[in-house]
Amino acid sequence: MNSHRLAAELRKIFPEDRIITGELERRIYNYDSSFMARFHNFMPDAVVLPRSTAEVSATLRLASEHKIPVVPRGAGSGETCGCLALRGGIVLDLSSWDTIEEVDSANMQVIARPGVVHYKLNKHLAEYGLFFPPDPGSTRMCTIGGMVANNSSGLRAIKYGTTEQYVLGLEVVLAGGQVIQTGGVKCKALKNVSGLNLTKLFVGSEGILGVITKVRLRVWPRPRARGIAMACFADLNEAPAAVLDVYRAGIMPSGIEVLDASAIRAINLYRPEINLPSSEAILLFEVDGNPASVEWEGRQIAEIIGKRAFSVEWATDPDRMTDLWRGRSVVAVAAARLRPDGSRIFAGEDISVPLDRVTEALRKIKELSQKHDVPVVNYGHIGDGNVHTAPVINLNSPEEVGRANKLVDDIHRLSIELNGTTTGEHGVGAVRNQYAWAEHGEAVNIMRRIKKALDPDNIMNPGKLLPAEGDTGGV
Amino acid sequence: MNSHRLAAELRKIFPEDRIITGELERRIYNYDSSFMARFHNFMPDAVVLPRSTAEVSATLRLASEHKIPVVPRGAGSGETCGCLALRGGIVLDLSSWDTIEEVDSANMQVIARPGVVHYKLNKHLAEYGLFFPPDPGSTRMCTIGGMVANNSSGLRAIKYGTTEQYVLGLEVVLAGGQVIQTGGVKCKALKNVSGLNLTKLFVGSEGILGVITKVRLRVWPRPRARGIAMACFADLNEAPAAVLDVYRAGIMPSGIEVLDASAIRAINLYRPEINLPSSEAILLFEVDGNPASVEWEGRQIAEIIGKRAFSVEWATDPDRMTDLWRGRSVVAVAAARLRPDGSRIFAGEDISVPLDRVTEALRKIKELSQKHDVPVVNYGHIGDGNVHTAPVINLNSPEEVGRANKLVDDIHRLSIELNGTTTGEHGVGAVRNQYAWAEHGEAVNIMRRIKKALDPDNIMNPGKLLPAEGDTGGV
Repeated sequence: MNSHRLAAELRKIFPEDRIITGELERRIYNYDSSFMARFHNFMPDAVVLPRSTAEVSATLRLASEHKIPVVPRGAGSGETCGCLALRGGIVLDLSSWDTIEEVDSANMQVIARPGVVHYKLNKHLAEYGLFFPPDPGSTRMCTIGGMVANNSSGLRAIKYGTTEQYVLGLEVVLAGGQVIQTGGVKCKALKNVSGLNLTKLFVGSEGILGVITKVRLRVWPRPRARGIAMACFADLNEAPAAVLDVYRAGIMPSGIEVLDASAIRAINLYRPEINLPSSEAILLFEVDGNPASVEWEGRQIAEIIGKRAFSVEWATDPDRMTDLWRGRSVVAVAAARLRPDGSRIFAGEDISVPLDRVTEALRKIKELSQKHDVPVVNYGHIGDGNVHTAPVINLNSPEEVGRANKLVDDIHRLSIELNGTTTGEHGVGAVRNQYAWAEHGEAVNIMRRIKKALDPDNIMNPGKLLPAEGDTGGV
Repeated sequence: MNSHRLAAELRKIFPEDRIITGELERRIYNYDSSFMARFHNFMPDAVVLPRSTAEVSATLRLASEHKIPVVPRGAGSGETCGCLALRGGIVLDLSSWDTIEEVDSANMQVIARPGVVHYKLNKHLAEYGLFFPPDPGSTRMCTIGGMVANNSSGLRAIKYGTTEQYVLGLEVVLAGGQVIQTGGVKCKALKNVSGLNLTKLFVGSEGILGVITKVRLRVWPRPRARGIAMACFADLNEAPAAVLDVYRAGIMPSGIEVLDASAIRAINLYRPEINLPSSEAILLFEVDGNPASVEWEGRQIAEIIGKRAFSVEWATDPDRMTDLWRGRSVVAVAAARLRPDGSRIFAGEDISVPLDRVTEALRKIKELSQKHDVPVVNYGHIGDGNVHTAPVINLNSPEEVGRANKLVDDIHRLSIELNGTTTGEHGVGAVRNQYAWAEHGEAVNIMRRIKKALDPDNIMNPGKLLPAEGDTGGV
């Protein structure tokens, strides 16, 4: 369908001010936060801003009839090209459909449209003494629809799990325009085992099975208290060992973060006043719960990790907690300061390995960084083995870009070798689908069968999550 | 295929002592704990006891070639006919395949074969200071494979979630004999968002998509302390209100159980020495965590519910906790004591409704019990609205059986009306699939498409979970 005809068809569904067809404006949709997006021009033919299920349904009916690719998009804060129109077509920008439809505090749940920003949701829930625990770094940007589509998590996954755990039901529009409710058409129960678990199949499906237009989330009572312990280690091996010691003491912190020597250096360069002690690793433990529990666990953690760390500080005072957390909170930005011409890239940044291989992963990433001569900064959610590596390169050097791409490929392969995964929380999109066979083997064919059953013409976010059509994994 | 030929083919796969073809022995496989099973003769043509993935795979290859139904079975403790051979065929009795392959305490996970009994798993994990939190009433019988296939839960679901939450990966044998690994072929990471979430699709799929032959579970550190509060209410309305008050205080107990007046009466008849106070409802709150936390929450809960209850007792002494819990622990058996000729049946026993409709559900169940003249006892996991109703009937009266069936149907429909589900944790099987359209609407067709994509000949546990083939929901 040519662009004039497409625009005319979309005008039957949307008012003029929610259709974007001008080239300049469409360029805005040619990016996300991934490294890959910088080097491609994934322009959609049109962008629409739906604000009703009927509009999404009509768009998908149109798209199916004419076999036009459809790409759902939230805030564009993703790091995998997941919301980019690899093959043109229509981008559904769902970010302006941001209604919190209901906070049902008596039933501990909230119903929201996909464009609601994570931070705003939790701000609103706080008025009811409730919260939605998953806590991505992009909280001030990312949308609930995007979080569900990517099964996001963040700092608190070790204790509270990932987004998946909170999704009780979804409204989904399928290729062809059919609208279904998962988790029960009118269900508001907290527990439901009837039917196949479509809800969880759609969570993390990155838009390749359908468009999420409504989310029913379970929420939790807000914990009353919080505390943070910071520990510095002279030996990198001691950090994962300390994490395990804490678990073995029967304690489940809400977060355990690591900064390695590279991250510590970058932070101190970026903000000298933070002045982190020079060490091979710093761990931050966050504990939450009732005040008595937090105090008890803080004391225990300080004692336990004190046996391995050369310094430990425990704080429950809000200002001091903010201080202790300051290094962690600036590390993503600080990384670029490793070199004057440097930019931090988001690629190979999200491996997750078994806890007992974190040290090995960090050491080997350092070796790979040296091998490819690309400096990196490592930090992340050590409590679940999720390591964020930030390569820092000069983007104007094609040669460096080439080396960075090789480094990233090596990091992904390393993770699989270490019985880990290429992505703990950021997703696959178009940047990690080439590893699907190595990660999933024959299960890839089952994923493809399900994709085919729900989207026979492959119009839903094509080219994402699954390996390219011709890629049979060498079989 | 006739039974001689089938036996001959199975002998190529299994040693003689793990094939059952004699009529008398096959009768053992003609039951589970459901009411429905009493009135039917769902005899398999053969039973095999696999102890390797290769054996399961070869059986499924054989079954596919000849379009023979295959029914996986664990302990047979289910209440839905889920493991019965509705259409004959081969039952895979997985209960003797009960190896715990690995406790990987450094990575907080355990790998087990399907026949491992829940109680034994947790006993074994206790040696490592770990536990698998879901806690079904059938702990001493039920198998991990059965728990995964049914997404079981039990007492602790409000704080710890259902089985689903702990399943990191599965080995599954599909119709045709193909073996896949979900959650990553060699993955031992705690977090992994690569690929479609096949793991969670198979959890709760009741054997209609494949046979689960290995389970990788995340486990948790064992909490150090536990406490129980028992509260008695003169007004039924006050019980759910007290539950909500506790949540609103930021407290998440590990369990909240209810006994209504009918249950209290049954328990006192069965064990007069327990001598529960006469009341409209009794609530039991279980709290776990570190010792300081448990003490703090116990004090808070006692104060909060003290405003609504006429008596509250809080205990952390193990003997006293056992005493307080005694009524709850005998209620399933006590129910039958409501009448001298009575038997408790498992049917309509597992609705889950929104928390703010629990009172209404209990009142209406009482009305339905009177309408159909079938006495019932109500108890259950009020913290997530999961009400267990135990009808008590004379099984020798076909007329009473008929009335019980009508009552059960009314209870299921009531739950859907109250925005609940017909099953919070026990599953659908062959006893609740007629409600699929009412619960899931158009999503039923999507479940069917997925079923068809994975099992085109419908040999995997046919007749379960999804509505009967011809049932199009009146559309």
